[in-house]
Amino acid sequence: MKSIYQLARPRALASLAAPRVLTVQSPRANRLWQRRFSANSIASEGARLDASKLTITKTSVPKELSPAKDLIFGKTFTDHMFTVEWTAADGWHSPQIVPYQKLQLDPSACVFHYAFECFEGMKAYRDNKGQIRLFRPEKNMERLNKSSARIALPNFDGEALTKMIGELVKLDSRFIPDARGYSLYLRPTMIGTQSTLGVGPPGSALLFVIASPVGPYYPTGFKAISLEATDYAVRAWPGGVGDKKLGANYAPCIVPQLEAASRGFQQNLWLFGEEEYVTEVGTMNLFIALKNKETGKNELVTAPLDGTILEGVTRDSVLGLAKERLIPKGWDISERKIRMVELVEAANEGRLLEVFGSGTAAIVSPVRAISYRGELVSCGLKEDQEAGEIALQMKNWIEGIQYGDEGHPWSYVL
Amino acid sequence: MKSIYQLARPRALASLAAPRVLTVQSPRANRLWQRRFSANSIASEGARLDASKLTITKTSVPKELSPAKDLIFGKTFTDHMFTVEWTAADGWHSPQIVPYQKLQLDPSACVFHYAFECFEGMKAYRDNKGQIRLFRPEKNMERLNKSSARIALPNFDGEALTKMIGELVKLDSRFIPDARGYSLYLRPTMIGTQSTLGVGPPGSALLFVIASPVGPYYPTGFKAISLEATDYAVRAWPGGVGDKKLGANYAPCIVPQLEAASRGFQQNLWLFGEEEYVTEVGTMNLFIALKNKETGKNELVTAPLDGTILEGVTRDSVLGLAKERLIPKGWDISERKIRMVELVEAANEGRLLEVFGSGTAAIVSPVRAISYRGELVSCGLKEDQEAGEIALQMKNWIEGIQYGDEGHPWSYVL
Repeated sequence: MKSIYQLARPRALASLAAPRVLTVQSPRANRLWQRRFSANSIASEGARLDASKLTITKTSVPKELSPAKDLIFGKTFTDHMFTVEWTAADGWHSPQIVPYQKLQLDPSACVFHYAFECFEGMKAYRDNKGQIRLFRPEKNMERLNKSSARIALPNFDGEALTKMIGELVKLDSRFIPDARGYSLYLRPTMIGTQSTLGVGPPGSALLFVIASPVGPYYPTGFKAISLEATDYAVRAWPGGVGDKKLGANYAPCIVPQLEAASRGFQQNLWLFGEEEYVTEVGTMNLFIALKNKETGKNELVTAPLDGTILEGVTRDSVLGLAKERLIPKGWDISERKIRMVELVEAANEGRLLEVFGSGTAAIVSPVRAISYRGELVSCGLKEDQEAGEIALQMKNWIEGIQYGDEGHPWSYVL
Repeated sequence: MKSIYQLARPRALASLAAPRVLTVQSPRANRLWQRRFSANSIASEGARLDASKLTITKTSVPKELSPAKDLIFGKTFTDHMFTVEWTAADGWHSPQIVPYQKLQLDPSACVFHYAFECFEGMKAYRDNKGQIRLFRPEKNMERLNKSSARIALPNFDGEALTKMIGELVKLDSRFIPDARGYSLYLRPTMIGTQSTLGVGPPGSALLFVIASPVGPYYPTGFKAISLEATDYAVRAWPGGVGDKKLGANYAPCIVPQLEAASRGFQQNLWLFGEEEYVTEVGTMNLFIALKNKETGKNELVTAPLDGTILEGVTRDSVLGLAKERLIPKGWDISERKIRMVELVEAANEGRLLEVFGSGTAAIVSPVRAISYRGELVSCGLKEDQEAGEIALQMKNWIEGIQYGDEGHPWSYVL
């Protein structure tokens, strides 16, 4: 019987399994390794992902559109999906757009057992000229490549995928409601499909994209949420994978989320370490606006990308716009570690201006209060106020770019 | 548009999403929560898993048996599989044994996006009377229930599942080679199948069991492996899920495994924290036999179950047998934290007797050396020796029970 190393990808790993001489390095192994970590490059073995090979098979049974007001996030999907297979031997196969359909996978496929899976969340918007736009798609492509590399799944040409996502969106554009706040949520996903139970790098994978029409996150205006500061469970750890958009980061957070919900809180605010650093919300990054004690200046703070924080595209957009448009108004913009006690102190001293989450779904999500050690920390909103000034401004700025009201390089017209 | 909370399981979560009054606790939510964490109980909502409802559909195209010597771990499967669906509304549906077949799942199924998946590894053995035996199946059932509860998947009646696994094994018993060291590897797996992208507890799940005939891990006798002590990546942490058999614990370990392999090491030995505690190997627990500096006595050490260590069934069996059979010979048996420097010191002072991994696949896996900070720590084996005395003894003891040579309550005759 062969050892576990020989199973997973016989060709690629044969040279790794054999040697017992500890100083020998296999050139083959090194190439494999380099490919795995070269997150921004395309797969160096086999065929590249080639948009010119895209084939489109249209559905013969177009779906009926749901009324826009009934849309539920990620529940209904468009007529078609994008799909492309990858194998270690041949690289990327021919990409296809096909009718939305079930995946057929062997029950031993490694995605079911070892969580070989990563994804992205992005949106397509219809502007007031009827054009369709993506928002910073290159950021999603870059992150998906980083995520896939971290779990030994293949890399791909992000421009090629963006182009083919564009084809999918154009084909299914009738699903994008023509109203502000509505969009087509896109979910690029990569899974390992190898059908053996050996624990090793997948020898085959599937990259697919599905699309779900969605309405505004806050249809009747902002509604501030409340968070439970959580330290009994820990979302991410240095040396872990909390900065990657892996399936592995999500399932373990649901039970703490249910526990918080049972006490009336919509999400967990994940604290880290003895210092109780404020990290993120699991589905959102967190921004804190306060009057800095030392400088006396207004400061917009978010946790730095230290490996435990998801590299949010909206987070990056908020930071970029804040640097461009808030610094001139006297703000400091900081990516720095901030302790929960600093947030509490600012609240107690009337220096906490506002707190909001950032993410693709809601753009910004204002926070009313944070439960911490049995106390409810008020986050600066008045009782009848559902959003702070900065959150409101950020939503307007970002939405203005997403819907093309403002010409901006972040908006990508299909 | 509804909020993320209302999507995932509308019925169960409706009461969680609405209230803003922070002190109100929803009785519904509490029941849900209690079920989630009552890892040893069966699902309290809907129907129980009922073995009396099992239906069997036999294949019309039985597979040809592979020659025993060609068997590769987890690569070929038997004629049939066990499968049962669960829904939040109805509980467990009717269990079935059906021909081995592909799973058909919506591309939005939560197992593909958020790693709602957990599994077990166990084996069926043919004894010298031709009877078929399982080894401590109740431990696997208990652990699978703990794993599923941790990621908001349903619990089930472990005795009922064991009984039905027995039916599957008997139906496919021709696949178990009649030779020492051979067995039928069983892979109970539970996945979340809900087809929406909202991040919440799955409203539906699938529990399935597939079976793969396997040969002896070391067909030509033991072959000691070498490990790379790893601190740049972290497998598990306090407050995380490293003690559960979740898919989420596996994919993130593959790239470090490839890196270790590129330097000639078969597995990572995961160190934790500034203290560099020796934890486990990811696919195995670790045992260290040394002469204790303080007591002068022989000591068999393994890391304690502090939440970062998988609760291995073989680990528990090694500990149980060691307490019963080694303590009378003057050994101390310790579940305690041990630092890498303590292991190095023992090696340098000639007090390190042997090191071995424990797991279902190999039972025990002797370790020749551990790479640590650029040095190679020799783990007590002579150059021509592939296994230490304790590892050898443990393998014989456990195999003797598994194959029914020794009557023992751990062995479960079907």
